[in-house]
Amino acid sequence: MIDFATAYPNSRKVFEERAVPLTPGGPGVTLRVPMREVALGGGEPPVRLYDTSGPQGHDVRDGLPKIREEWIAARRRTVFVGTQLYYARRGEITPEMEFAAAREGLPAEFVRAEVARGRAIIPSNIRHLELEPMVIGRNFLVKINANIGNSAVRSSIEDEVEKLRWATLWGADTVMDLSTGKDIHETREWILRNSPVPIGTVPIYQALEKVGGRPEDLTWEIYRDTLVEQCEQGVDYFTVHAGVLLRYIPLTAKRVTGIVSRGGSILAKWCLAHHQESFLYTHFREICEIMRAYDVSFSLGDGLRPGSIADANDEAQFAELETQGELTRIAWEYDVQVMNEGPGHIPMHLIKENMEKQLEWCDEAPFYTLGPLTTDVAPGYDHITSAIGAAMIGWYGTALLCYVTPKEHLGLPNRDDVKAGVIAYKIAAHAADLAKGHPRAQAWDDALSKARFEFRWQDQFNLSMDPMTARAFHDETLPAEGAKIAHFCSMCGPKFCSMELTQQVREYAAAHAITDVEALREGMREKSEEFRRAGEIYVKASS
Amino acid sequence: MIDFATAYPNSRKVFEERAVPLTPGGPGVTLRVPMREVALGGGEPPVRLYDTSGPQGHDVRDGLPKIREEWIAARRRTVFVGTQLYYARRGEITPEMEFAAAREGLPAEFVRAEVARGRAIIPSNIRHLELEPMVIGRNFLVKINANIGNSAVRSSIEDEVEKLRWATLWGADTVMDLSTGKDIHETREWILRNSPVPIGTVPIYQALEKVGGRPEDLTWEIYRDTLVEQCEQGVDYFTVHAGVLLRYIPLTAKRVTGIVSRGGSILAKWCLAHHQESFLYTHFREICEIMRAYDVSFSLGDGLRPGSIADANDEAQFAELETQGELTRIAWEYDVQVMNEGPGHIPMHLIKENMEKQLEWCDEAPFYTLGPLTTDVAPGYDHITSAIGAAMIGWYGTALLCYVTPKEHLGLPNRDDVKAGVIAYKIAAHAADLAKGHPRAQAWDDALSKARFEFRWQDQFNLSMDPMTARAFHDETLPAEGAKIAHFCSMCGPKFCSMELTQQVREYAAAHAITDVEALREGMREKSEEFRRAGEIYVKASS
Repeated sequence: MIDFATAYPNSRKVFEERAVPLTPGGPGVTLRVPMREVALGGGEPPVRLYDTSGPQGHDVRDGLPKIREEWIAARRRTVFVGTQLYYARRGEITPEMEFAAAREGLPAEFVRAEVARGRAIIPSNIRHLELEPMVIGRNFLVKINANIGNSAVRSSIEDEVEKLRWATLWGADTVMDLSTGKDIHETREWILRNSPVPIGTVPIYQALEKVGGRPEDLTWEIYRDTLVEQCEQGVDYFTVHAGVLLRYIPLTAKRVTGIVSRGGSILAKWCLAHHQESFLYTHFREICEIMRAYDVSFSLGDGLRPGSIADANDEAQFAELETQGELTRIAWEYDVQVMNEGPGHIPMHLIKENMEKQLEWCDEAPFYTLGPLTTDVAPGYDHITSAIGAAMIGWYGTALLCYVTPKEHLGLPNRDDVKAGVIAYKIAAHAADLAKGHPRAQAWDDALSKARFEFRWQDQFNLSMDPMTARAFHDETLPAEGAKIAHFCSMCGPKFCSMELTQQVREYAAAHAITDVEALREGMREKSEEFRRAGEIYVKASS
Repeated sequence: MIDFATAYPNSRKVFEERAVPLTPGGPGVTLRVPMREVALGGGEPPVRLYDTSGPQGHDVRDGLPKIREEWIAARRRTVFVGTQLYYARRGEITPEMEFAAAREGLPAEFVRAEVARGRAIIPSNIRHLELEPMVIGRNFLVKINANIGNSAVRSSIEDEVEKLRWATLWGADTVMDLSTGKDIHETREWILRNSPVPIGTVPIYQALEKVGGRPEDLTWEIYRDTLVEQCEQGVDYFTVHAGVLLRYIPLTAKRVTGIVSRGGSILAKWCLAHHQESFLYTHFREICEIMRAYDVSFSLGDGLRPGSIADANDEAQFAELETQGELTRIAWEYDVQVMNEGPGHIPMHLIKENMEKQLEWCDEAPFYTLGPLTTDVAPGYDHITSAIGAAMIGWYGTALLCYVTPKEHLGLPNRDDVKAGVIAYKIAAHAADLAKGHPRAQAWDDALSKARFEFRWQDQFNLSMDPMTARAFHDETLPAEGAKIAHFCSMCGPKFCSMELTQQVREYAAAHAITDVEALREGMREKSEEFRRAGEIYVKASS
């Protein structure tokens, strides 16, 4: 696998250091918050970018350094180990909040306030000591999630750890391990010990494995034990489909694609077989108690999300969303952090309604959507059909975008698919950040565009989301090193390069002593007036 | 190159026949309007889709059949050969309008009325006899344009004709030949004689070649002769950057990326060198007269479009747009059809303003945008950064989306890049059609989703925008033929397939005689009530 230095030429990891108390009034610690710094030519200052790649060069068998060990130990020496929401509500700024704030370039107090309000979460199981904390909320940078995990059909542990490192190298902010096959516990252990980003799971998958794949045989006890097992390992957030209620299931009967969530369909089958509400719903408060003890965040699943354009924004979907809101408020009673999962397949004109209802019904808890895909007709390209919807819903306020790879609906993603999905979603998230006006977002675009205009090709490549691909595409037609300083590319050739022509225009203006823009404009205006007085044909038309 | 049958398994070309008069009250002709019909399994009716691929199996040296020969000949026998706009305004429905209407599934009278209003155009040079007419306007299906053309650096005539066929095979509705290198006339001739779709050009490129690449040496006479030459060949629409006025040029001086349009920068250089308005502006009415004689449509260029997020929606851009509106009204005086070109690089929150201003200032003439790209930071992936913007602006009302390939900003697209660009833009256009509620759009999605839910894998592949890719991705992990009838894929495996589980849920309901949805819902409600009465823990929380 290529490493950080190869993926990002001329970039280096830098660390912003912040001295903070471990607990209020307690001993201090110096946080080292990672950023990626891209060095530029042409006398330009370096550009610092958000970095998710985690510590590099560690042996997978050793796992990553346990940077939170000391933080959690200090917390254990207090009366009570709370959740980030608990501390936030008490007005306490944790190292996790400081860390996340530094990454965003925002005050830690702002992070605390957003967490306290339930409008942001910091998924951070006290057992996931390798974590570099980050914040998910609509007043922060839009984040992306990459799904990995083996299935019964294919894939191995090594493959999954490699996919994790690969996904975070390219920019995944969180990763979900959706393994369903054999070795599910061991796969997760390797993933957690090597993950600098929050790891999410869907515990019902493992519970189902424990009962031989028969949904009707699931019990609260088996599920509860699975939760505890995963809490102990350090999973940072759980998808819990507690909003799939018995009375909502018939609402899916006339759909084109019924229930398309794995968890949703498992729960639906259980509910029908037992003719009662699921144990996720009836034991929801016990689930909260377990998750509180480890500070595992809820990702309240949308088991009835639409799987086709025809089913978008229907009664089943919105019935469950209302229940997600109800469950959100219950979790908050227990100081458990919550986000809500959302669709799915939604045509563009129905996307906004999803965001508005979620904000209203779920009291502004962060929204976490899968896409949405804006059409059903392009399997093989669903990273694109969904990047469109993801960018839009990110702009409208979704905090976390679950990626979709080109293999969606067709098969298990390989490494190339994971990268394609991550890049498409980094684009969607960044486009949303620009549209939302995040204070740091546009500096990146400006730096790249300036490099482009000034023919600093190496800088243009190095500032790209994927420098290797940008360079390779350029070099396909103009491989010579000399072409990297040329004032054109193969697209238009030397004579037709608009940027080169524009520079000539500016030089012309300079050579003719029209150095001041206003003076130039004035000169133009005079010329223009002359021109009009000369009886130009447009006087009539433009009046 | 792969052919139609390989690209679209189980599809065949069908022709909707329409008998129409060639001229009002004159002799008739039977139009044969192509569609692609996808045959399905499972007793499902076939699905008919819009088809741009043109007649297949013809020798490039012979060109395509001249289906419009008889239509134009009949028109020549009348007093006057007018433009589509001329006939539309007179209330006459031309064969071109009938043909385009049949493709859209809409009444020809509606097409006529939209063309008469200037809200739609049918680019159709009377010398492009191979054309299968189509309509561009915001009350029709959103169309896409693919740019091809050699540059001084690379590419040959054969390559360009192959790119044309390739682009239309995958769905390009129009193609622009942006050649700038040698053999520009001959390349265009081959392209036109083999093109079933409207061909657009930027005549200033060829004019510039004629003066050795020195913009300041351009003259009206050279440009005029180039226009006539291209009109005679059969070009259907011309990009004319007549809106680049002298006084707007200084407005670009403080931009991050100055002028990024090739045509715009050529014109700017000419204007500065001569200190006067360009001959495109001063001779605009003569240009209209030439174009009217051949029914060539205007694509009024946006030479000052923004080339970076920083420059979006600035004074220079909008100043030119106002002039485009002025020129639109002049062209209409001459019965010349017009569309307006738009940006470029625009963050999501500024896209809508572009559409609104264009509609207002250009009197609802069709808008034709390049993307827009919603961020600058992903060279190598600009088909995605721009598909996001294209889908949105298409929804807002843009009629024609100019594709962007992954090579944008980096080099000349090869065949794979052309396909990637076309597919990304077909996705954007179709997502826009769904959001706009085009009456025929959703049937395609519904057919595919139904096939997906019913595990009709072959149908799912065959209904895809790119069947080969969908099939190849599926087969990567499950290559066996048996997997094509399996009730799962490698993504989730057999036990976790939500669609399979949902079908089991439905079967369960059927087996328990809960065949009626309302009855099932009623049963659920009773259960649910029971459940609540039993003192369920949520009574408090949900009240």
